[in-house]
Amino acid sequence: MKNSGRLIGVGTGPGDPELLTVKAVKAIETAQVIAYFAKQGRGGNGKAIVEHLLNAEKTLLPLYYPVTTEIEKTDEAYRSQITAFYDQSAAAVAAQLENGRSVAVLSEGDPLFYGSYMHLHVRLANRYPTEVIPGISAMSGCWSLAGIPIVQGDDVLSVLPGTMAEAELQRRLSDTQAAVIMKVGRNLPKIRRALEASGRLAEAVYVERGTMANAVTTKLSDRPEGEAPYFSLVLVPGWEAAR
Amino acid sequence: MKNSGRLIGVGTGPGDPELLTVKAVKAIETAQVIAYFAKQGRGGNGKAIVEHLLNAEKTLLPLYYPVTTEIEKTDEAYRSQITAFYDQSAAAVAAQLENGRSVAVLSEGDPLFYGSYMHLHVRLANRYPTEVIPGISAMSGCWSLAGIPIVQGDDVLSVLPGTMAEAELQRRLSDTQAAVIMKVGRNLPKIRRALEASGRLAEAVYVERGTMANAVTTKLSDRPEGEAPYFSLVLVPGWEAAR
Repeated sequence: MKNSGRLIGVGTGPGDPELLTVKAVKAIETAQVIAYFAKQGRGGNGKAIVEHLLNAEKTLLPLYYPVTTEIEKTDEAYRSQITAFYDQSAAAVAAQLENGRSVAVLSEGDPLFYGSYMHLHVRLANRYPTEVIPGISAMSGCWSLAGIPIVQGDDVLSVLPGTMAEAELQRRLSDTQAAVIMKVGRNLPKIRRALEASGRLAEAVYVERGTMANAVTTKLSDRPEGEAPYFSLVLVPGWEAAR
Repeated sequence: MKNSGRLIGVGTGPGDPELLTVKAVKAIETAQVIAYFAKQGRGGNGKAIVEHLLNAEKTLLPLYYPVTTEIEKTDEAYRSQITAFYDQSAAAVAAQLENGRSVAVLSEGDPLFYGSYMHLHVRLANRYPTEVIPGISAMSGCWSLAGIPIVQGDDVLSVLPGTMAEAELQRRLSDTQAAVIMKVGRNLPKIRRALEASGRLAEAVYVERGTMANAVTTKLSDRPEGEAPYFSLVLVPGWEAAR
């Protein structure tokens, strides 16, 4: 009986290749197969971050989403297509593991923190030797880039998706010391109103493409109204001394 | 006029030296001065993590806390002693920067996420060239070690200090998809009661010394009652599919 390969969820961090951990670099250098999620026809952000570590010896296993924004996420058709996709992706990774090959699954940021890797993990980690290598999250990359002390002492931090209803967002912003608002994009006008209503707009910092070459950091109140690109988030610092 | 040195807040991650980022390793190798906070007579946890990168060329600048648990944190005497200490520490670091020497300040986990480095940052970053290198936080190290998908999709994550009042902790645990409870230690019995009252005890996972050699991971409900050591936290996963 052959030994199976190792499944490794590898956090690639927020964008700067030097924000990979030493452990992640070794895992990518050692694994025979590099798997990554990507939009059809794209290279994938995780793969772009580790490009300098890849060579012709590696087997690349791209996992292309069948749908991204074409169907609403609440739609049953979306749910069934995406579930089938994760099942097929897990089967493709399992086939490599069964052949004794280790598979590093690239995950932007931190694999178990809003990462697609989780869909493979829950399907495979009970059947194969598995390791998860944490990564620097986008929020951590952004507050470090902006030099914003986010929490200290007994501060509560709330990580909030910008997709939530405006009243709910306002309530939560009024009930926390610090906040990170993710999934900003077209939700930015709503987020701005919720921040204003909760009295937190003056403190809020907007970061676009944090840690990437063309990053933008500004007080949200200084930014023009309107939508934001996908790679953006809003930070509300908690620590009083930092204000 | 001499050029001043660079202030670098360096995240050393949660304990495993391989969880340093490539950027952190380079910063430590390059800086002339390595500063770190520690208890009197101790080496400091951050320094222990990077020990393999230090050599006789480096100037070590230990910053010893004048008090830790001898005085209550709410006491005015604590506040004045600790403020004076951070002022003196910033002055000691500034003296090196004025001499043109770069100073890497070691910070366990992530520097701007509950880290002591923040007290130097707010005193010095407006006067000297400064960079913050994010690190893997303890919570990220723990959920990765335990293989627990913590948040997905539109989940809210609440990071809660275990020091808060029991009723408040219970309220917040009832009002979030995922939670990380920090500062566990002697607060563990209270935390257990708050989890039980909010109906979240069955999901809660206890991690002790996450990513260190002698780490312990167990369902909190399987752990004996009683206090916990300093390096411990409780994870409440949000993602439904992970349960």
